[in-house]
Amino acid sequence: MILKKIIIVSGTHGNEINPIWAMNKFRYENSDIEKNIEYKYILGNPKAYEKGIRYVDTDLNRSFCPLNKITKNNTYEITRANFLVEKYGIDGLEPCQIAIDLHTTTANMGTSIVMYGRRKKDFCLAALLQNKFGLPIYLHENDPKQTGFLVEAWPCGLVIEIGSVAQNFFDLKIIKRFLIILKTIREEINKLENNEIKLPSELIAHVHKGSIDYPRDENGNISALIHPERIQKDWMAIKKGDPLFLDLQGKTTHYLGDKMIYPVFIGEVAYKEKNIAMSYTSKEVIYSSNQWAEDFFSF
Amino acid sequence: MILKKIIIVSGTHGNEINPIWAMNKFRYENSDIEKNIEYKYILGNPKAYEKGIRYVDTDLNRSFCPLNKITKNNTYEITRANFLVEKYGIDGLEPCQIAIDLHTTTANMGTSIVMYGRRKKDFCLAALLQNKFGLPIYLHENDPKQTGFLVEAWPCGLVIEIGSVAQNFFDLKIIKRFLIILKTIREEINKLENNEIKLPSELIAHVHKGSIDYPRDENGNISALIHPERIQKDWMAIKKGDPLFLDLQGKTTHYLGDKMIYPVFIGEVAYKEKNIAMSYTSKEVIYSSNQWAEDFFSF
Repeated sequence: MILKKIIIVSGTHGNEINPIWAMNKFRYENSDIEKNIEYKYILGNPKAYEKGIRYVDTDLNRSFCPLNKITKNNTYEITRANFLVEKYGIDGLEPCQIAIDLHTTTANMGTSIVMYGRRKKDFCLAALLQNKFGLPIYLHENDPKQTGFLVEAWPCGLVIEIGSVAQNFFDLKIIKRFLIILKTIREEINKLENNEIKLPSELIAHVHKGSIDYPRDENGNISALIHPERIQKDWMAIKKGDPLFLDLQGKTTHYLGDKMIYPVFIGEVAYKEKNIAMSYTSKEVIYSSNQWAEDFFSF
Repeated sequence: MILKKIIIVSGTHGNEINPIWAMNKFRYENSDIEKNIEYKYILGNPKAYEKGIRYVDTDLNRSFCPLNKITKNNTYEITRANFLVEKYGIDGLEPCQIAIDLHTTTANMGTSIVMYGRRKKDFCLAALLQNKFGLPIYLHENDPKQTGFLVEAWPCGLVIEIGSVAQNFFDLKIIKRFLIILKTIREEINKLENNEIKLPSELIAHVHKGSIDYPRDENGNISALIHPERIQKDWMAIKKGDPLFLDLQGKTTHYLGDKMIYPVFIGEVAYKEKNIAMSYTSKEVIYSSNQWAEDFFSF
């Protein structure tokens, strides 16, 4: 049995507090279990957590850029990102092979997986979870406006994104969902390693294609809200002519594209500052490969 | 018909954004209605709203203390409070007699009325709303730790408090509820003035008695969460032995008081910094008086 080291990070955004509680509970409950996987438990952004805010200077989950180290006057979060990689990165002092970064969203995403790019190891882990629970996968790639995600700094890593839940609001239902995922990751890795299960033949991924901002007035203020027909409809198809936004006067903005799109992070509170009312994806079937598992166990 | 001037304030807390949208929509829809009531529409804390935070320096809704003006180095919010009173206060440049302050909470309070102290005018207005919709009333008084509420700076004023809704999250259901309340206030005042209705013979108020903090560890960190049996149970009686909190190890903290209490603001996100996990009240029947309406129309 190969010992794997997983870094579990919660509170990467300081106002997403349910993952922190879940991580601590997992740590407490996990303490007497036979150890074929070793965990590091990390509070991602302690300063932001203390203040109850997403971040202090810059978004920590956009601060893991390889170019960071060149800069001299780093923000708190870039310094923190560098520290975490230097300590727990694959070439760090206490190297971990896998990063699991726990997040919540105010959007009605349910329990979902976010992956960045198309790494075989990530596909393996995501396939295990999708196979077990049918979790939707949001595959984020090729967006130059959004880079430097935490899990990209490890050879393998996924974000577990659960919502809807308000920022800074404890919700035991959300905490339980994180605990189920953390336990399942351990169990499914073990089963795969022991040849008790096989990877599914295919994955269904929602591949990031872009984002849509709110309509705004001449001062840049949001001038229309998410249309009632879109509210809480993450993952559900939008076709040409479907309503997107509704303004104060009752005027509707419609989707005018020809391609069917699948929205995610609808109305996510933290993305207003990023000028994102929702992101959109296309559905893609990705065929499984034997290499996924081989690669996963080749750390 | 006597012309009354009502100041409607939204965004007193900058991250409570649904009241702002509702106020603007009410203003838009109200523009062509015969005017027996004149409105002033105020964004309470513009700086905090711009930043998406509750307040910049100090809580604006604790900054309306009569002693403010003596201080020299005022916070942004105290300066703002002084400005609003000097401009729209009863002795101001554009005097308003009534203040309606629109708030949201992350607690499951439903649509409720918060009043401060036992002013006849407030009772009259609260009675109109409770009579119409059966809205619960939270009567806040005698809490030296919490003073300086906005509506106290006007001769008559109520807070409309609606939840649950997340901070910074637009929710059309919440916006609609504010619109109904704003329209109803106008309609019921008119009916009372025209003797089309009478005040009910009694009010039921939940009178503030105190607050309960979360259990905390030696470092001051929250060490137990609202117990599942309490979650979303605002206004619902707690009796001796009922569970209040649940910690990481599964240990429950129980309510040990002899008197039955009625909790409000359970788990309100913004009150963690005030060391409040929930406030509690006792139920009181307050008998109506003819003076309420007389006083209300005696501005």
